[in-house]
This record gives sequence, C-alpha cells and structure tokens, in this order.
Amino acid sequence: MSDRSTIVYVLVVIDLNADLGEGFGRWSLTDDDALLSVVTSANVACGFHAGDPSVMRRVCDLAAERGVRIGAQVSYRDLAGFGRRAMDVPGDELAAETAYQIGALRVFAEAAGAEVAYVKPHGALYNRTVHDAEQAAAVVAGVQLAGGRLPVLGLPGSHLLAAAEEAGLTGVPEAFADRAYTPHGTLVPRREANSVISDGDTVVRRALEVAVKGSVEAVDGTTVEVAARSLCLHGDTPGAARIAARVREALRTAGVGVGAFA
Amino acid sequence: MSDRSTIVYVLVVIDLNADLGEGFGRWSLTDDDALLSVVTSANVACGFHAGDPSVMRRVCDLAAERGVRIGAQVSYRDLAGFGRRAMDVPGDELAAETAYQIGALRVFAEAAGAEVAYVKPHGALYNRTVHDAEQAAAVVAGVQLAGGRLPVLGLPGSHLLAAAEEAGLTGVPEAFADRAYTPHGTLVPRREANSVISDGDTVVRRALEVAVKGSVEAVDGTTVEVAARSLCLHGDTPGAARIAARVREALRTAGVGVGAFA
Amino acid sequence: MSDRSTIVYVLVVIDLNADLGEGFGRWSLTDDDALLSVVTSANVACGFHAGDPSVMRRVCDLAAERGVRIGAQVSYRDLAGFGRRAMDVPGDELAAETAYQIGALRVFAEAAGAEVAYVKPHGALYNRTVHDAEQAAAVVAGVQLAGGRLPVLGLPGSHLLAAAEEAGLTGVPEAFADRAYTPHGTLVPRREANSVISDGDTVVRRALEVAVKGSVEAVDGTTVEVAARSLCLHGDTPGAARIAARVREALRTAGVGVGAFA
Amino acid sequence: MSDRSTIVYVLVVIDLNADLGEGFGRWSLTDDDALLSVVTSANVACGFHAGDPSVMRRVCDLAAERGVRIGAQVSYRDLAGFGRRAMDVPGDELAAETAYQIGALRVFAEAAGAEVAYVKPHGALYNRTVHDAEQAAAVVAGVQLAGGRLPVLGLPGSHLLAAAEEAGLTGVPEAFADRAYTPHGTLVPRREANSVISDGDTVVRRALEVAVKGSVEAVDGTTVEVAARSLCLHGDTPGAARIAARVREALRTAGVGVGAFA
Repeated sequence: MSDRSTIVYVLVVIDLNADLGEGFGRWSLTDDDALLSVVTSANVACGFHAGDPSVMRRVCDLAAERGVRIGAQVSYRDLAGFGRRAMDVPGDELAAETAYQIGALRVFAEAAGAEVAYVKPHGALYNRTVHDAEQAAAVVAGVQLAGGRLPVLGLPGSHLLAAAEEAGLTGVPEAFADRAYTPHGTLVPRREANSVISDGDTVVRRALEVAVKGSVEAVDGTTVEVAARSLCLHGDTPGAARIAARVREALRTAGVGVGAFA
Repeated sequence: MSDRSTIVYVLVVIDLNADLGEGFGRWSLTDDDALLSVVTSANVACGFHAGDPSVMRRVCDLAAERGVRIGAQVSYRDLAGFGRRAMDVPGDELAAETAYQIGALRVFAEAAGAEVAYVKPHGALYNRTVHDAEQAAAVVAGVQLAGGRLPVLGLPGSHLLAAAEEAGLTGVPEAFADRAYTPHGTLVPRREANSVISDGDTVVRRALEVAVKGSVEAVDGTTVEVAARSLCLHGDTPGAARIAARVREALRTAGVGVGAFA
Repeated sequence: MSDRSTIVYVLVVIDLNADLGEGFGRWSLTDDDALLSVVTSANVACGFHAGDPSVMRRVCDLAAERGVRIGAQVSYRDLAGFGRRAMDVPGDELAAETAYQIGALRVFAEAAGAEVAYVKPHGALYNRTVHDAEQAAAVVAGVQLAGGRLPVLGLPGSHLLAAAEEAGLTGVPEAFADRAYTPHGTLVPRREANSVISDGDTVVRRALEVAVKGSVEAVDGTTVEVAARSLCLHGDTPGAARIAARVREALRTAGVGVGAFA
Repeated sequence: MSDRSTIVYVLVVIDLNADLGEGFGRWSLTDDDALLSVVTSANVACGFHAGDPSVMRRVCDLAAERGVRIGAQVSYRDLAGFGRRAMDVPGDELAAETAYQIGALRVFAEAAGAEVAYVKPHGALYNRTVHDAEQAAAVVAGVQLAGGRLPVLGLPGSHLLAAAEEAGLTGVPEAFADRAYTPHGTLVPRREANSVISDGDTVVRRALEVAVKGSVEAVDGTTVEVAARSLCLHGDTPGAARIAARVREALRTAGVGVGAFA
C-alpha cells in the first residue's frame, strides 16, 4: 500500500444463460448453434415441453465442445402448450417428473463428457414457482431426488430460490434483459403486450444496467433492484442470437466479465 | 476318483425377470408388489410404452428394498399401442430414445440406493431386434451412450444379443415359460391364438424344463434348445403373480437356485 | 275440481349418467359393458384424458345397441394426469380442444347410428368450470363451434351451466350420489379423505334422496338442495357397476322413472 | 359443323394440393397463408403427426375464406417422428385412428362453413399404403367409418387407390413435382439423397410435364407415366410457397386449368 490514491478494480462477472434445444422432431425453434457461441450456460429442454432425445443429444454435444455449461430446463408435461400453461400437479408427481427430466438429460451430458450442472424451470413452471411455495418445494424435491446437489436458477425473491436455499442447495438469482418487469420485480406475463422486448438496443442497455448497476427499469418507470448472477437471453425470436451476441460484446466493452456462475 | 459311487451336484442357478411398473397415471396393470416378492430382476418401464415418473419411482423404491435388481425396459415411443406396434425408427433416433429412457430410470434407481443394472427391450422392439440387425445395433448404441456397460437381455440367437456381444457388452439369453415357441426358437407372435400360456401347471412345467434341461417344447411338438440364464415371467395377466410364485417354488424344490444373473 | 279427494301423481324421471370408455390402449378402467346396462347417458372419453379411437368406437357401438345416449366427456389434454390436473389453458385453445374432442367422438357415434347428444367436462375441467367463468365460457364456445346446439351437463349453480344458458344452450344440472358435498353444493375435492363414497347402501340412499327430495346431505350434516335432472354414477371403482345397478333398481322401486333427460 | 378444319380444344384441368397446418403448439412449419393463395386443395394435418386444434381451426377458416377445398391429412400417431416412421398398426386400430382424425377435422371445416372433402394419408402411412394391402384397406375402412364417401388421394397404382375403388370410393391419383421418382413410379424415399427437388425451375418443368404430358422423368432418366388428377406441392421447405406460386403461373401460361378435382 502507498499513500498515493488507490485504484480499485471491481471485478464483475456475470453468467449468460439461454433456453436451447427447444425443437421437437421435425420442428426447430432456437438457433442453438449461434447461441452456444454466446452464452455460458445452456438451459436444455428435456422432452416435456420441447426437446426430443436426438435434439438433446446434439445440443449436449455442441455445448460440451464449446465449453458451455449444461443445465436441465425442466417443465410441466405439455408439448401442445409448450409448457406455458400452468398445471396443478400434485407435489410428489411434480418432484418425480422433475427428476425424470434431469436424469434423461444427464445421459446426454455425460456421454458428451460433461454433466448436468444446474436446473431451471421453464415457462409456466418458472412463473408458478415464483409465488407457489408448494410447487417450488416440489421442484426442489425433484432436484434432490436426482442427486448431485444441483444449483437452481430462478427469480430473485421467488419461492423457488428460497426453497432451494432451505434445502441446502444454491439458489442462483437471474435477470432478464429482454422481458418487461413489474415494479415488484416479477416478469410481466407473456400474454400482455410489450412483455417481451425485441429491440436490440434496449435489450443491450438493460443487460448492462443489470450487470453493472444491479437494477432494471420496470414498466411504470421505477427502478427495480435485481441482484442477478446470471442474465437470461432468449433465443426463440427472430434476430435473437444476434442480439445475444451484441449483449456479450457490450458487456466486454463495459469491462464486465462473462462466465458461468460459481 | 474312487470306486465308490460319486454323487455329482450340478449347481444350476437361474434369474427370474418380469415386466414391472407398466401402469401410467390413473391406470395400473402389473401387480408390482406381488411380483417383487418372486423375481430377482425387475424390468421397469421407462415412460415410452408405460411407466410415468411416479410409478418408476415407486417400483425402484420397492425393488431396492427387496434386493431385486433393476433393469431398464426400453420401448418404442408408443403409449397408445403399449409399445407393441413395430416402428421404423432411424438408428440414431432409436439410440437416443434408448439412452433417454435408461437415464430417466437411473435417477430413480440411484435415489433408491440401487442402480440400473441391465437393459431389456419391450414388446415390438424386443421382437424387431431379434431379426433386424440395424435396430439391434441402434439399441446397443443407446445402451453404450448411456454408459456403464450394461448387460442386455434378449432371445438366444437374436441380432440383439449378437450386437451386444460385438460391442463388448454382455448378452444375457433368456427364455419364456409362458409364451409359445416356434420350432426356430422364436416366440409365436401375440396376435396368434395360444401364443400366451395361461395355465399355471403348464407354465411351471415349462419353467422347469428350461431351467433343468435347457429346452422347451415348440408348438409343433419338437424340442427347442434354449440356453437361458434368465427366465421371463409375465405379470399382466390374471393370476400371473401367483403362477410366478409357483414357478419359483417349483425351481427350489427341483434344486434349482434362483438368483440374479452374474 | 271436485270435493272428492284428488290423487296426485307426481311423475319423477331422472337420467343416470356415467363416465365410460376410460381405458387407453392396453389399459382398461371402467366396466363399460355392465354400466351400459344401467345408465341412460354415457359420458364417453374422447382421447384427451383417456379413450383411444378403438375404445371410443367400441363404447359407441355398445351404447347405440342398448339405446344409451352418447355424450362427449371432454377434458384437458393430460393423459399422464387423467385430466385431473387443472390447467391454465387460454380460452381460444380450450374452445378448439373441446370442439376437436366432440368432432372425433361424433364419427363413432354416427357410425353406430347414433349421435353425440350432449357434452360434459371431465375431472379438473369439470371442477374448474364451476368457479372459473372464463374457462366455462371457453368450453361453451367449443360446444358451439362443434355445432348442433348440444346440451351441457354440469353442477347446479356452476359458471358452466350459466354460460351454457347464456349462449342459448340447455344446461342440465346433475348430482352425484357417490361424492361428498360441501355445504355450498360443490363436490369435496378428490384429494380429501372421504370425498368418494364407496359404500353401496349409502350411495343408494343418497341417490334416492336426490331423485325424490332434490337434496343431499353435505359433509357437515346440513342438507343441500340439488335440483338435478341427471344423476352421475362412477364406474372406475371396484363394485361400481353393481352399485349402479342397485341404484337403478332402488329408483324403480321408489317409483322414480329412469330415462335420458329431455 | 363446317367442312373447314376443326380446332380441338383439349381442356386440361389439374388440382393443386399441399400439406398445411403442420405446426403444433409453439412450432410452425408451413407457410399456410401463402400456400392457400396457390393451391386448390388443402391437406390439413389432424393432430397425429402435426396440427393442434387451434392450428386446425385457423387453417380451416382461411381455406374456407379463400374457397380452397379441405382434406384430412391422416397419419400414424407419431408427433416425435412427424408421422414419418412406419408403424405396424393392426387394421382395426388404424381404421379407428383414421376416422378419429377425420371427425376432429370435420368440426373445424363445418364451423368454417365448409366440409372435409377428401382424405390423404401423410408420410409413412402414405408410403406404406402404396405396397401394404392390409393397411391400405384399413385406411379405407376408416374413411368409410367416417361416412360421407370421401375420395382418397394417393399414388397411381397404389394399394390405397385400389382399396378405395374396391370400396366404391373415388381414388384420386396424384403426382409430385418436387419429389424424385423411381422407374416404377414410386417416390424415392426421403432418407435418400436428392429425393426432394428444391430447384424451382426443375419443379416448374416437372409440374408442366405431369399436367400436359402425364409423365415424369425418373431418377434413371426413363419416363414414367403418371395419370394424375392432382399435383402435390410441398410447403415445408424454404421458398416452397414461392415455387408453388410459380408452378400455378406456369400452368396458367401453358393453358392448363387449375381447379379442385371433381
């Protein structure tokens, strides 16, 4: 230490995650190849809302090749609704369904020389477990059933993260650069207009705000704190992969490191 | 050697396997509880022809508790046809579908403190891989993809067992005490009359014939050699569990040991 | 009017309905053959919670042969949960799903020389549309989409019957002899103990109470009015068909006519 | 009549059909809107390989609005394989599955003020019923079960068309401008290279050859006769809708009328 002014380097590192492998059979959706060049964590669909075994295998192979971490994107069993229709699944069934999906994905992750490193609920299950303590506990019970003490990604303040922490698992708070927020820090439901932000400049600006300031602007103009360790980017809209790449570049320029959460 | 008469003890040990967990949601089929008191290997349905996650979990828990070995009963994806309708699934898809099912079951076996110890195809996939080298190879590729070098149960002389051996896996030949045989050692298709033997006395007699003599009587009265290390008993017909118990008792009385294959 | 005493004959006629065809592929559930000798209206599963095309065809053929009226038992798309898990299905999707099921069943009803004569939601959809005006309206929209101005069976006081009437359709109130009631006239949820009444004598007594007095005893001992034109009997429990037959006989003895609702 | 030379106008009219509504839930595939401006007959997916109820409804509404005839594109029950994996479905099951799909579609056609006017098998079922008399008969039995004596589209010389004619239905022979032909007049399987023709000029040339000369060039350079009353155009490849429009324009220029088959 000297008496001269001290320069403090604050090292900020954030994880980038995206939903991948959301095709099924003949249908494809996400640009997996492009996104895997951008993100550090891949939420791989496990067959309940999307993702047949061949797609799962291919995404795991690609992710392992690129050093992208693999997570299980678990869902309600609802292909027709893409997992976006909330279901009143009893807790023990939901736990077993969660574990089933993790186990199925694990085969492909391990065959690729990698592992399933975390779990993130999809769509309606994600939204439901923000507020529903019972379903949140069931998902966490499923994660425990699957072994390996996997971290769980979710919204800051959600029942899901609380249940994970209570069970001794790591709850990883994430934020969304391309989704509108309510003043309470929850996501504006997809069925509402302007719930999804598609303008690239806005997404990049919000990503930086989350990463650097730990906050995001809500729909009413107020500022919401989001202590996120991961940033979710979507890959199922036109130009999504390109916007994701811009976000990564903007973070680099701003001196924010990008890397999988610890 | 002496001039006194020599008593030779031939130690014969045979495995007993049965299909279990073949319910789905509201529907049940097999008397899992009763069969798990009889068999040494449980072929657990993995969700493609039967077996939802809750059923899989329950059967694995019960099997582990009773020391019954757990195997993955993999199938074509065909709930409506109970996996009994052969499908022209391309090899890479079939391999991935096979691995998916093994991985899903593994979660429940391991949560119960056990493991998935072998693989056996179900229904139409079982029959198809007797004759179809390509699909046999695909199933074996799926087993390899799932890791762990799991043994594969199948019909003696089948492409499935040949493909398993060729891949360096153990092929375990099995016989059926309650199914009619053609003179070629294959099973009489279920759609034909008298393909399934429901008379308890006959099943017991045939089980002994297989275990002690290594043969079974074909539909034309000829004797077919079946070098089986496991004996399959069915659990989806009325009285099936009781007949299975009688088979086990008859084997004991005849001095045949019952135990999981090595 | 005369001064001589007048004998008043009150003609009471009630419909008996039951859920039928609730098997799927290899699995069966309801004793369709026995129930079709008892009921006057058959709620036939249409493939979304149960009922594959072959089952639907067989039940329609049998129903037509016996002169039992055929109704479409529409459900959420949920085979794994037997339609007992409520789902947040958007209204337009739910209407289309409802119409799809009615259309599929109509083919088999008409091939048997009969017709689809009414609609009744199943399981969670039935319970949801008691309280949920939006989903009730969606089901009714689906019925209208399917044409033919079909009557809708439901719980007295439900949003479903209100929506049907509002749309100019006939809402047919029904009661359950084998389900426990809350003091508000709704059914005690299945997940609660004693929600389903399995004792034959009790079911018969309650059926008579509904048919003759228009009331039923709730779980708290109070009496609830149920102005039912149809009585639902269940066929998926052991001895269910026998109890149904006893109900019909008891009604006959009590002078209550049994016949399809007008 | 005069003694001057008589000009003979040969009126050639051909139907243009395409597979439509092949999305499912979140996934879309075909450019339904564009194709419905080109074709005269729409083969609408009915939910077994693609096509959820909402998609079916939307396509029927659009087709009716544009005066495009609606046909039921029936398939094996195989969402994961998009109906491209042949299945050994027993005849009675296949007939019931066929009727189920027709009935479901009929609801949406009729709600749109139109009707289901014909039936065409999809994918593997289409190919299987070229050679398999039993499955061909089962599909035709399903069409009969559904009533209305609907015409059946298929390959000239197929068992399907023969079975339709034998049952007293109209078999409508069709040809493919964008698929390679074997010298026997069957389609080169999709798994083979160059089985699908994507070059627009070639497709247009072949369409004209079929419509005007009644023939098409096979892969070995020989000419195969195809007495087609309808021409199938595909809509699931990039630029497909544009090529379809070019075909229609080329036919017009060549003096070939385009209209639904009688």
